[in-house]
Amino acid sequence: MKLIFSILHRISTSPSSYIFRFTSHQNKPTKTLIPLSRFSFSRSVVCSLPKLITRATMDAKDASASDLKRPREEDEFAAAASMETDNSAPSANGDQTKEPACFSSVIPGWFSEMSPMWPGEAHSLKVEKVLFQGKSDYQDVIVFQSATYGKVLVLDGVIQLTERDECAYQEMITHLPLCSIPNPKKVLVIGGGDGGVLREVARHASVEQIDMCEIDKMVVDVSKQFFPNVAIGYEDPRVNLVIGDGVAFLKNAAEGSYDAVIVDSSDPIGPAKELFEKPFFQSVARALRPGGVVCTQAESLWLHMDIIEDIVSNCREIFKGSVNYAWTSVPTYPSGVIGFMLCSTEGPDVDFKHPVNPIDESSSKSNGPLKFYNAEIHSAAFCLPSFAKKVIESKAN
Amino acid sequence: MKLIFSILHRISTSPSSYIFRFTSHQNKPTKTLIPLSRFSFSRSVVCSLPKLITRATMDAKDASASDLKRPREEDEFAAAASMETDNSAPSANGDQTKEPACFSSVIPGWFSEMSPMWPGEAHSLKVEKVLFQGKSDYQDVIVFQSATYGKVLVLDGVIQLTERDECAYQEMITHLPLCSIPNPKKVLVIGGGDGGVLREVARHASVEQIDMCEIDKMVVDVSKQFFPNVAIGYEDPRVNLVIGDGVAFLKNAAEGSYDAVIVDSSDPIGPAKELFEKPFFQSVARALRPGGVVCTQAESLWLHMDIIEDIVSNCREIFKGSVNYAWTSVPTYPSGVIGFMLCSTEGPDVDFKHPVNPIDESSSKSNGPLKFYNAEIHSAAFCLPSFAKKVIESKAN
Repeated sequence: MKLIFSILHRISTSPSSYIFRFTSHQNKPTKTLIPLSRFSFSRSVVCSLPKLITRATMDAKDASASDLKRPREEDEFAAAASMETDNSAPSANGDQTKEPACFSSVIPGWFSEMSPMWPGEAHSLKVEKVLFQGKSDYQDVIVFQSATYGKVLVLDGVIQLTERDECAYQEMITHLPLCSIPNPKKVLVIGGGDGGVLREVARHASVEQIDMCEIDKMVVDVSKQFFPNVAIGYEDPRVNLVIGDGVAFLKNAAEGSYDAVIVDSSDPIGPAKELFEKPFFQSVARALRPGGVVCTQAESLWLHMDIIEDIVSNCREIFKGSVNYAWTSVPTYPSGVIGFMLCSTEGPDVDFKHPVNPIDESSSKSNGPLKFYNAEIHSAAFCLPSFAKKVIESKAN
Repeated sequence: MKLIFSILHRISTSPSSYIFRFTSHQNKPTKTLIPLSRFSFSRSVVCSLPKLITRATMDAKDASASDLKRPREEDEFAAAASMETDNSAPSANGDQTKEPACFSSVIPGWFSEMSPMWPGEAHSLKVEKVLFQGKSDYQDVIVFQSATYGKVLVLDGVIQLTERDECAYQEMITHLPLCSIPNPKKVLVIGGGDGGVLREVARHASVEQIDMCEIDKMVVDVSKQFFPNVAIGYEDPRVNLVIGDGVAFLKNAAEGSYDAVIVDSSDPIGPAKELFEKPFFQSVARALRPGGVVCTQAESLWLHMDIIEDIVSNCREIFKGSVNYAWTSVPTYPSGVIGFMLCSTEGPDVDFKHPVNPIDESSSKSNGPLKFYNAEIHSAAFCLPSFAKKVIESKAN
């Protein structure tokens, strides 16, 4: 699911700890650290602060101190506001910890998602219980039980999935490409470590082999532990999981070997930048058979038209078949929507807007019924608002 | 736009002031007031607190003190966090005030929208400047300049429109009904005091008369002052504005007199409850000509399927023509979507899914170009996710 470099505001009891603060400098997001010593907390709040997790600072120029800071609570209410933590959950390095933990959020007892990718707005979920917090070689991983969205997976401060709405993203990113071609046999998934895309690919009886390349093993393990209805995808015997770098994996893939590639990627700032650039799309095109299809996470029409414009331009250059943009509703993603770039290579025509390959309903016996996707919503996903249609069609034609 | 009873947490410098807190009691939202004396603030924050605006309490049973409270700020940053206020803006009663004002929000310097209609989540916007705050006979009215969504209109603590995404709601609630029938001539708008629906109705050259019944004159005045590109709808000579109760207006309307009724209503808790009940829909059906159409705001598929089920059942009983549910993306509404109930009376068939009445593009000369609506997105709006389709179709057929 969508990852991006650390946005979560982290606080620690350590005197050398910091709060992150984002500002904008010449239209580029900048981040600086404010020493924790400049903040003070009531005792009971300090008791519930999480482990120190710090990251490298970015450009600190032009920073002011007012953008993000942890508000102070009244002692009277702090005990109630500090969150219950499941101390039996494994810590970052897998061993047991008695240390209390909670989110460092601008709203006590809530998780708030803020990012330079969507400045000036924040979506917050009320936290019932922190179930896991860890730091892998690539990112910070948190699982919490929310009050109204079920369990939530957060990577580097950004919501990747909630049990309540994950169906929309997983079903659409998978079935938009796979229902657009007849009899897909060999499918590659880049990213998607939670296993939800695998669960959806597995609904297609024609599929014989599902390769998956996920860089972060902790995401796979955490999903298996806390999201069994998502990670169920790993139980399919057709799945071949490789823990590694998707860019390198694709470079080494045999030419023309896949019917479909699904890129369940992060946002194009930070480490995933490459996944939105020409060389990566060229690798994808090379790995696909003639008339093969790719579907890649492609941001929000409301927030990122500039990024989408560039992706469409790149794809139009590289993919000589169809190039289309689709979108869907996902309440817990910024602006409530997420988009997908769908392209096909030169070869048999692919008409993404009119699915030709319906899902065998018997798949719901093992993987549960489809909750979101159907043939009508497939076609509807390609109908864009006028403000976006104008820009995307001018780039795509 | 969507109104609901007061959700904004209000704080005042008065010793008798309160903070609202919501909890859930037997699945019914309950609200209580916590005396402000139980909270303390740094001086500079107190300086920036708004005028006292209080409302009647609701059921206070089963309340705990931890759900909503204003976090305390550090003096060091409070001055920067308090918002700049336009003191030249008129106050509630229209006269000038020097009193500083800000929102009482869980995130200092931000506006946070929380409600028992969407428990456990909050959407927040960063505030640049408060432009207006007032209290009408019906609701609290606030206009602020946000950091990234333009000017924002808030009624009783709930976002009604932002300059950045109002196009989606206004265009869809208007053109879904008006593009579904040939040559609409007489149109009634209930609510919609900001004028955005009028702006959209006015694009239809066939329309000869636009009656509008809005209960709150302050909303009309504030929109004309702060949202000229929305309130432009009032400049059309076909508009006949009545300030009054929409329920009473409809009861007195001549039978069979309207081609279309658009209900830009509040949520079905509090004063607007009636607008979701059978007698109101019966009045609408009575006021419509045979084969006339109604479009009413109908909540979020992700949040309110129980309410939607009831609306669909009611409408299926009352409207003997078509009964359909549509939805669209509006980032600043809860869960990022809003739905519409579209019905027609017995008479000439109406196929809402296939628009027959395209908008004359010359309308964009006076009212600006359409930003969101087009014929494809019209049809797409009726394609529902499987989880919703199953429920709605079982009630509609």
